[in-house]
Amino acid sequence: MAAQEFTIPARKGRAAPIKAGQHITVVNTHGTQVVDTWAFCGDDLTEFMSMEHSRAAAMKLILGIGDSFVTNRRRPILAITADTSPGIHDTLIAACDAERYELLGAQDYHDNCTDNLTAALADLGLEKPETPSPLNLFMNIPWTDAGGLSFEPTASKAGDRITLRAECNCVIVFSCCPQDMIPINGIDMIPKDAAVEID
Amino acid sequence: MAAQEFTIPARKGRAAPIKAGQHITVVNTHGTQVVDTWAFCGDDLTEFMSMEHSRAAAMKLILGIGDSFVTNRRRPILAITADTSPGIHDTLIAACDAERYELLGAQDYHDNCTDNLTAALADLGLEKPETPSPLNLFMNIPWTDAGGLSFEPTASKAGDRITLRAECNCVIVFSCCPQDMIPINGIDMIPKDAAVEID
Repeated sequence: MAAQEFTIPARKGRAAPIKAGQHITVVNTHGTQVVDTWAFCGDDLTEFMSMEHSRAAAMKLILGIGDSFVTNRRRPILAITADTSPGIHDTLIAACDAERYELLGAQDYHDNCTDNLTAALADLGLEKPETPSPLNLFMNIPWTDAGGLSFEPTASKAGDRITLRAECNCVIVFSCCPQDMIPINGIDMIPKDAAVEID
Repeated sequence: MAAQEFTIPARKGRAAPIKAGQHITVVNTHGTQVVDTWAFCGDDLTEFMSMEHSRAAAMKLILGIGDSFVTNRRRPILAITADTSPGIHDTLIAACDAERYELLGAQDYHDNCTDNLTAALADLGLEKPETPSPLNLFMNIPWTDAGGLSFEPTASKAGDRITLRAECNCVIVFSCCPQDMIPINGIDMIPKDAAVEID
């Protein structure tokens, strides 16, 4: 039993303050769900986990066990300490947003990870300084030799777990991606919930 | 003769307002120079060219002739219309900054692309809303099948030219990367100038 547990509801976001040294495990309960993830430093939200700085620090498109994501000031913020999934976690693609769904043909407002980030932080009385490029846990964006990318269903299975250790006090934010217009969240295109355990 | 021409001095930045439909040609005068590039919308700097949105729009790690970079609101901002170089222009790596050079062992202040962005905009009386991940023209960051990245010298030759068409009124900013502690700007590790032509 983890010290703290919560569900990230399908299509929605959740944020939590985390202390340095705590471990955050994200459980892909149904296996098919992409979980957009952000982390902001606890005492200054303008410092946050940055994919473009993390790729430069690790010299990898996808970070794995033993690698640390770093902030936009190049300090470690989250380290991957365990992962039962195939280890496919996208760092390349922007969070979905209202404009993304409009371009896909949505007629009405569509839940999106960018607004979920805003709302999850607001639940803690916080405001995002900007929308950093997210760590897309379980998101499967393969690349070709020529640099082509494609959106594919997750490669993970129900119950897969990735554990991140906080390297500083921070606020972590998750969004269960509400994408239901392309099969990034499984071929049934039904966004589902995921679970978080904090120790 | 272009309607407007200027040099981007070695190690420094330059910004220019651009009207929709204008063509901006960046000339790699010496062949070895990386030119970090940003574009902000003319009437609202909080909308700007975004690498994470552009990769998602083009579904490519590196965009080429015929592709358009898009903003963080997913609207086209710069299209590549011509390129005499091998077409290797990085979208993955953060702009260098003071912290980058400290980590590499610099003892004193080191010129960097992030500060160059700030200074170039200040020359026009403008302030950046944030530091977007840059389009690194001519920067050579190859990837492996396994997702490994490496910093390599440019693949371009002296006089190589890439032309971008503005898809909206914008402010374009260039920085001749002052990196002289790793051989990203050629094996002599001497940052050099580059030239810009606007028509």
